[in-house]
Amino acid sequence: MSVDMSVDLINRAIVLAERPRGLPDASTWRLEERVVPQVRAGQVLVAVRECSLDPAMRGWLDDRPSYLPPVAIGDVMRAMVVGEVIESQVDAYPVGTWVLGALGIQEYAIATPAALTRIDPNLGSAREYLGILGTTGLTAYFGLFEHGRPRAGDTVVVSAAAGGVGSVVGQLSRIAGTRVVGIAGGPQKCAHLTADLGFDAAIDYQAGDVRRALRANCPDGIDVYFDNVGGGILDAALANLARGARVVICGAISQYNVDPDAADPQLRSATGPVNYLSLLIRRATMSGFLVFDYADQYPVARARLSAWKKAGLITARETVLQGGVQDFPAALLALFRGENVGKLTLELTSGVR
Amino acid sequence: MSVDMSVDLINRAIVLAERPRGLPDASTWRLEERVVPQVRAGQVLVAVRECSLDPAMRGWLDDRPSYLPPVAIGDVMRAMVVGEVIESQVDAYPVGTWVLGALGIQEYAIATPAALTRIDPNLGSAREYLGILGTTGLTAYFGLFEHGRPRAGDTVVVSAAAGGVGSVVGQLSRIAGTRVVGIAGGPQKCAHLTADLGFDAAIDYQAGDVRRALRANCPDGIDVYFDNVGGGILDAALANLARGARVVICGAISQYNVDPDAADPQLRSATGPVNYLSLLIRRATMSGFLVFDYADQYPVARARLSAWKKAGLITARETVLQGGVQDFPAALLALFRGENVGKLTLELTSGVR
Repeated sequence: MSVDMSVDLINRAIVLAERPRGLPDASTWRLEERVVPQVRAGQVLVAVRECSLDPAMRGWLDDRPSYLPPVAIGDVMRAMVVGEVIESQVDAYPVGTWVLGALGIQEYAIATPAALTRIDPNLGSAREYLGILGTTGLTAYFGLFEHGRPRAGDTVVVSAAAGGVGSVVGQLSRIAGTRVVGIAGGPQKCAHLTADLGFDAAIDYQAGDVRRALRANCPDGIDVYFDNVGGGILDAALANLARGARVVICGAISQYNVDPDAADPQLRSATGPVNYLSLLIRRATMSGFLVFDYADQYPVARARLSAWKKAGLITARETVLQGGVQDFPAALLALFRGENVGKLTLELTSGVR
Repeated sequence: MSVDMSVDLINRAIVLAERPRGLPDASTWRLEERVVPQVRAGQVLVAVRECSLDPAMRGWLDDRPSYLPPVAIGDVMRAMVVGEVIESQVDAYPVGTWVLGALGIQEYAIATPAALTRIDPNLGSAREYLGILGTTGLTAYFGLFEHGRPRAGDTVVVSAAAGGVGSVVGQLSRIAGTRVVGIAGGPQKCAHLTADLGFDAAIDYQAGDVRRALRANCPDGIDVYFDNVGGGILDAALANLARGARVVICGAISQYNVDPDAADPQLRSATGPVNYLSLLIRRATMSGFLVFDYADQYPVARARLSAWKKAGLITARETVLQGGVQDFPAALLALFRGENVGKLTLELTSGVR
């Protein structure tokens, strides 16, 4: 692909318009058109092809201290994306190179090599670099192996088990020789876990008492609980820990959209895990982590994840929405409604390209 | 001391009468008089001299799964005590031997050597075997060193810092070369921490916003937080963690007496740490532990604690109530009101002895 640089290239970008209370909506972002600036020495111009949608995006909208600064009002919405270099002032990244980077929800981005990861087609596709080989798969890998520390014979429980991270956590746990129980919403997702992904059991949190279901499905207790949701499901897991259990806090999607004015009383205030004293009774550990801290180990992890996928030990289902950057808000809301199975991405197939 | 065994020896014991909701009261226990049975081969008869009062006692009253079975209705109230062997059918424990054991709130107890620890006067007094050399000091030692893992230069924060465990945690942290901030209730306790125990700073939780006070006193964040209280103070600490912090869950005295009918709304329901996602942002770990798991290391720990105390590096303040076993309920309530400074014990100085 080549671009006629004799006319101004227009970039359409999703920028943060205002900080949401509770769930984002149409007024949270706005579409801006900007002329793509000149590519300077040491820079490349990337045409964004596909964008990752992640629960963590909600946290980036809040103006409070966190592991990354919040997205500023007027800034392009932060996102991991894959794309193709269409103009280059870097010898090592010629036109046609495919890259991964936190380039944001926009059609074009200027970047330097330090911000980019070259996509190795021997390991997987560009789309897989957003999923199983991207932050999603790496989060599952490091969270499970570094913090969950599964041992053969352990019982591992993962919440949001049909989602991008959860589905990989469950399958990696199987590779580690554990028994795996997934928690997901609805019979379809639960059937997917056991029929397609090799989970030993699945619990539909919409269908009944999760605490009781965990007790029934984990008679010897939970050795590793990998939490993506928080709220009542975290409490149900804490009530069923085995001695010496490891609770891995990866996220808390139930807590991200808390809004004092929400119609649903459960969304009106943040809730902490009332059952946290199980940590004491069960001599257990609850730890949080951020995948970025393991960046120096990404190459090894990507190679292993790729090999397991090629060997058929990991099935990486993807839910791909197609459209333009303007479809990002609706896509993110679909994520928060749990409409995806596996990794959710937005492929930029429309718009001014 | 000798006992005339030709007449029946009457033991007065505090037995559990009913399970309390919220704070225990006069109807929770009753005094029972029982004839002390014959001492058989392999047994000794111990005259109890002093009883430990511990926040954990509250948990032992509830009929729910925990690390120990609950005290049964009609059973002697569980307690660590020290006493003197007054009759013996065990050569290694002759009359006059002083021992430590979980013999309960009663004047006399029959025991076997497996349930007893011999008090070594070279290490400390019998009273110290309830405090700095007992479960209290050992809990501080293993919780801090095995779970808090303080490093020189760290900032350590401990709640209930003027209490039995907390006061030792703070002083052990100082020995480890850390900066120590204690949280306690009231100006007297706070002054004690800084003036007598070498704490670098003290925060009076009754005097204002603990979260803000922690921010002011721990500008680089909290590396180790040793929690004895739970509730809002735990949340305040979580909001001020340094990266890689270790949160040690030793107890949660604010949560033990929850009662749906309590007058104080804060006591009406258990509260979990709403700020637990700080574990993720700060890559922190929260772990629970039970001192009993380290029983095989008690001798080494006792020797070190004794040496530090003799060297003046640990000041072990004690609050000793004197009376009879019938004074136990009031003594335990004094503990929950925080009336003690340092280790609280009940010395049995009255009654039918």
